[in-house]
Amino acid sequence: MSPDRQIASVPQTMRASVLKAVGEVALETVPTPKLDPDQVLVRVGAVGVCGSDVHYFKHGRIGDFVVAQPMILGHEAAGVIAAVGADVPAERIGQRVSIEPQRACRTCAQCKAGRYNLCPAMEFYATPPIDGAFSEFAVIQQDYAYVLPDDVSIEAGALCEPLSVGIWSAEKAAIKPGASVLIAGAGPIGVIMAQVARAYGATSVFVSDPIAARRRRALSFGATEVIDPVADDIAKLGLDVDAFIDAAGVERAVRDGIAALGPNGRAVLVGMGADDVLLPVGRIQARELTVTGIFRYAGTWPIAIGLIASGRVDMDALVTQTFGLADVPAALAASGNPENLKVVVRPGE
Amino acid sequence: MSPDRQIASVPQTMRASVLKAVGEVALETVPTPKLDPDQVLVRVGAVGVCGSDVHYFKHGRIGDFVVAQPMILGHEAAGVIAAVGADVPAERIGQRVSIEPQRACRTCAQCKAGRYNLCPAMEFYATPPIDGAFSEFAVIQQDYAYVLPDDVSIEAGALCEPLSVGIWSAEKAAIKPGASVLIAGAGPIGVIMAQVARAYGATSVFVSDPIAARRRRALSFGATEVIDPVADDIAKLGLDVDAFIDAAGVERAVRDGIAALGPNGRAVLVGMGADDVLLPVGRIQARELTVTGIFRYAGTWPIAIGLIASGRVDMDALVTQTFGLADVPAALAASGNPENLKVVVRPGE
Amino acid sequence: MSPDRQIASVPQTMRASVLKAVGEVALETVPTPKLDPDQVLVRVGAVGVCGSDVHYFKHGRIGDFVVAQPMILGHEAAGVIAAVGADVPAERIGQRVSIEPQRACRTCAQCKAGRYNLCPAMEFYATPPIDGAFSEFAVIQQDYAYVLPDDVSIEAGALCEPLSVGIWSAEKAAIKPGASVLIAGAGPIGVIMAQVARAYGATSVFVSDPIAARRRRALSFGATEVIDPVADDIAKLGLDVDAFIDAAGVERAVRDGIAALGPNGRAVLVGMGADDVLLPVGRIQARELTVTGIFRYAGTWPIAIGLIASGRVDMDALVTQTFGLADVPAALAASGNPENLKVVVRPGE
Amino acid sequence: MSPDRQIASVPQTMRASVLKAVGEVALETVPTPKLDPDQVLVRVGAVGVCGSDVHYFKHGRIGDFVVAQPMILGHEAAGVIAAVGADVPAERIGQRVSIEPQRACRTCAQCKAGRYNLCPAMEFYATPPIDGAFSEFAVIQQDYAYVLPDDVSIEAGALCEPLSVGIWSAEKAAIKPGASVLIAGAGPIGVIMAQVARAYGATSVFVSDPIAARRRRALSFGATEVIDPVADDIAKLGLDVDAFIDAAGVERAVRDGIAALGPNGRAVLVGMGADDVLLPVGRIQARELTVTGIFRYAGTWPIAIGLIASGRVDMDALVTQTFGLADVPAALAASGNPENLKVVVRPGE
Repeated sequence: MSPDRQIASVPQTMRASVLKAVGEVALETVPTPKLDPDQVLVRVGAVGVCGSDVHYFKHGRIGDFVVAQPMILGHEAAGVIAAVGADVPAERIGQRVSIEPQRACRTCAQCKAGRYNLCPAMEFYATPPIDGAFSEFAVIQQDYAYVLPDDVSIEAGALCEPLSVGIWSAEKAAIKPGASVLIAGAGPIGVIMAQVARAYGATSVFVSDPIAARRRRALSFGATEVIDPVADDIAKLGLDVDAFIDAAGVERAVRDGIAALGPNGRAVLVGMGADDVLLPVGRIQARELTVTGIFRYAGTWPIAIGLIASGRVDMDALVTQTFGLADVPAALAASGNPENLKVVVRPGE
Repeated sequence: MSPDRQIASVPQTMRASVLKAVGEVALETVPTPKLDPDQVLVRVGAVGVCGSDVHYFKHGRIGDFVVAQPMILGHEAAGVIAAVGADVPAERIGQRVSIEPQRACRTCAQCKAGRYNLCPAMEFYATPPIDGAFSEFAVIQQDYAYVLPDDVSIEAGALCEPLSVGIWSAEKAAIKPGASVLIAGAGPIGVIMAQVARAYGATSVFVSDPIAARRRRALSFGATEVIDPVADDIAKLGLDVDAFIDAAGVERAVRDGIAALGPNGRAVLVGMGADDVLLPVGRIQARELTVTGIFRYAGTWPIAIGLIASGRVDMDALVTQTFGLADVPAALAASGNPENLKVVVRPGE
Repeated sequence: MSPDRQIASVPQTMRASVLKAVGEVALETVPTPKLDPDQVLVRVGAVGVCGSDVHYFKHGRIGDFVVAQPMILGHEAAGVIAAVGADVPAERIGQRVSIEPQRACRTCAQCKAGRYNLCPAMEFYATPPIDGAFSEFAVIQQDYAYVLPDDVSIEAGALCEPLSVGIWSAEKAAIKPGASVLIAGAGPIGVIMAQVARAYGATSVFVSDPIAARRRRALSFGATEVIDPVADDIAKLGLDVDAFIDAAGVERAVRDGIAALGPNGRAVLVGMGADDVLLPVGRIQARELTVTGIFRYAGTWPIAIGLIASGRVDMDALVTQTFGLADVPAALAASGNPENLKVVVRPGE
Repeated sequence: MSPDRQIASVPQTMRASVLKAVGEVALETVPTPKLDPDQVLVRVGAVGVCGSDVHYFKHGRIGDFVVAQPMILGHEAAGVIAAVGADVPAERIGQRVSIEPQRACRTCAQCKAGRYNLCPAMEFYATPPIDGAFSEFAVIQQDYAYVLPDDVSIEAGALCEPLSVGIWSAEKAAIKPGASVLIAGAGPIGVIMAQVARAYGATSVFVSDPIAARRRRALSFGATEVIDPVADDIAKLGLDVDAFIDAAGVERAVRDGIAALGPNGRAVLVGMGADDVLLPVGRIQARELTVTGIFRYAGTWPIAIGLIASGRVDMDALVTQTFGLADVPAALAASGNPENLKVVVRPGE
């Protein structure tokens, strides 16, 4: 990076909230990341807290991904470009951007087929050993830093990430105008999913959740009807929905949801739960159902920004708490509370 | 039906092999079926024996379908049109035809969307209480009686039915030129599937089967490589295939097959086994795999006939035994022997 | 039809507006249509006037379809079921329904593949020699009479037909959330198309029309931006839209629209114009554009009703004039005026 | 490039056949190309001559692409890796490879969506000002140098390029088992297309060409029937094919082919002809036909190599003449003769 492309205000070090060990996060001063020629340095304005952040904090691992050395969490991020790499136009400095937090190899068969999220060489924010964005600055390839329209807040920009999970699920589920959709779970992803289903034209959006307060919340975010999966046997309601999205990660929810699908229905399993789940294969065959899952997303940011900017979805309304960088432990605790929706960290405060 | 449309040789009664009770099949004289205006009467030339025939014979039921009254088995049929209904051109009499043995309502949402195999009002040959074709004559709607080219044998015409299972699976699995495919099971469907995979352009066709003789057989019917799933841990071979077709109906085969899929791979579960199967959902998510099943087929007959007529698949070579109508019990027994491939009943002999 | 299934109020004759000759429509008393077993008799409440009605009135033909005998025009119809055929449940009497005005053979390859609109044996309302719905009663197969929710007006029910044109076009154009769309022409179809594009998630909807009043109108019906194709050279604006819908039927509009497509863009030609149009094949190749057209629609009514009932589109607001059955000539004249949007005939008035 | 990664035999200069001016090609000694870190240097073994090479030679331009400075032609190339860039494993040296002759930016929306052939920043062999492969050596990004199996000849490896044109067309035309296909033109692309259509499962492959010798040739390369478009009016034969591929680039052929499509048929325009062509839009609408074109290809090389290696297509049989590097003018002349199929230049001879 040529020095003249980094604005004066970028210091050599920055504050970051570092995961030191299981259950231990500390505010530290670390070197500001260096830029590759095709990267930009983003002064982070807002970072959403995701369930995976909480999981790494509590358990130090997710499946095969193990935190072996100190790492910065946080992968739902937006901010302002503070400096640019050698191959990036200086004009980008000052842009408000949302970060798509992945770096694919661009050359493997998956990347060249447009499925870069399945790139085996993927480097993803806050997935060991890649640092995330609970820090003053973060780096990203320039083409993964998407300019935000003026009327989209930095918080909404950060939440393009979980919104992308919803968009990618809607694409996989082929939700179209007139569709009926069942969503299991009224946590952040479930509630985002309800909004996305509506934005994709669904006219019936059922959301199931065992907690009454969360069901009420779902109704204010796009659900047309809510279901208590404990009181009602979803499999016997005869919903015959076109699509089922699991955002609960619980076997019974998955099985009920698949049983609620009509002929040719699609199930998309988003919630993280057990590695192995007993699925109703006889039903899958008799109705020619399709079951799939998602692994992050590809190509969703322009859609996400378009949906927010046009008012089809409301990300700002999802934010229930905000914290400064020093209070990441409190943010992680708040995010783990099922009564809250999105918790946001603002590194600049 | 106007009398002048039924040729003189059609008698009022016919011989049929009737399933009387579990394990009991008897050759009886029954009324020749009457024709609706849009139907044709087919003098049955050949009927393949399917595992479902054997299952109904042995157990009297498949899932929710229970044989409650005497019924004629057999749904893989071809023959010659002997008479036509009032709305069918008399010119069709004498045509050699393959029967697509299903009668959908044509008016429901599934039918009008082109997915008539999922019609909830479906009447299907040899599925209680609908009679099949182990009989001298059988009726079918005229548009489901497909003319066979001269150089396609009646036996091959009958086997358009199991071939359609393979074609429908290949369509669901999106097998395309250059694809790699794993097929579990080297029984009739597995072997047909191997041929179909090649016809759809697959360049690598792996077939797994625990029996050495069946593996050898697979090699002569399109497999490019065979695997002993007992000796080798398929999940660890790193096959990374594009598509997996289960024609075994066994949990381990299903799990191994899904584990063998590369990113974005498709699994199509054809084999009938347990209603519930423990599936590797974590894997399905991490690789964005798609799992589906098939329920018969739709729109496959023209493809089936085209593949046979052009020599892309060889159905005649699959026939290992033939029996007369009086020997249906022997035919069912032969079909139940895993060393045999397709057993065919010839009602005219 | 058994007499007990026809309510007493259905008379043997009915009033109808009959096209007698080119330019001559007369109110006549004609026999009430008889019902086939699978049909319903609908007391027509509202019929939209389409450009094709005007064209048949003025010219007596559209392409190969020639009006050779007196015929009733009108194919955008809704009403109340007054009687049912022998195979239709009597409970349907009294239902408010929208009519999908087509009768396909249900048995050809197109029908069975779900493309029944391409059935070569199609009988379509107001297409010679099939009568339409400018009459007190009309008949339709029961599965093409779709129940309207209480809060959808009969006028909106009638306009499910042009709405279906828009929906089918959106499907062919693969309009999805975040898409940018260019629509040529701000007549009824163009304006409906703008609403549909928004309902399908388009975030940029450009509508071009040479008449300022029509451009203003488009802005109130979903267009995000309007273009004067005379003042501006659309091909040079660099729109790079994802989809182009022609609702103008004019060569320059078609060429401009195709030139406005970005890579991989889709053009759907809806407007009826010259049989042969000079298309920019070099551009189609260099950008891998797709050009297609539509012929009516298939499977759109449930979507149409869903979009109206959920408020995603507003059909009532399109109605600019209504007329009684005696005033069909005035209705046709009004419909031919480009300043009007939808003109509706109410046979009951 | 570190020196130790370039084998000793790579000289600083090489021989190349350079297009100096319209109609003037000269054998010259030029610097051997330098390698970027992600590139390999290929000692060119064979280069097919394409119509576009002939066109640049004769006219100095194709559309907006103008040869403004001396340039090396030839883009259908294969050879042996002689040296590798700094980021490429040295083990690749010595590999026999086919070159996909394009270099996309990898970061734009088209590239990330898997449509890298539509990348606006594309650098393509033998398209001004990028050099092609009529030379001793050529450079390519390592992931676009595909390893050839031992039993695939270098000539066949070079012809993966025109084969990719056929594959990409087949994909766009959705050719599937049982399909009927019409191909206009029995030149190299038409003949390759016939083979590819068969490999994709087409059971009826019609090829039209006005020259009898070319029609005979087509019959030996996969055509099931040939048509003389002068003697027969293709539009009136009632072919009703599923797909039409134009490899002629002539208006009448294009119009006839579109007229020969059945309902829902797809036309893919491959041949380069006039920028504007009068197309039958009325027909496109009435049958809901789809018309598209191709611009090179994306992701086809693994398929191409698979089809050659498995014997589904025969590229070696297409080669009618070979020339050394000094005889490129003769090779260009031979390629321009419609009686020849593929002319190949062997730079090593």
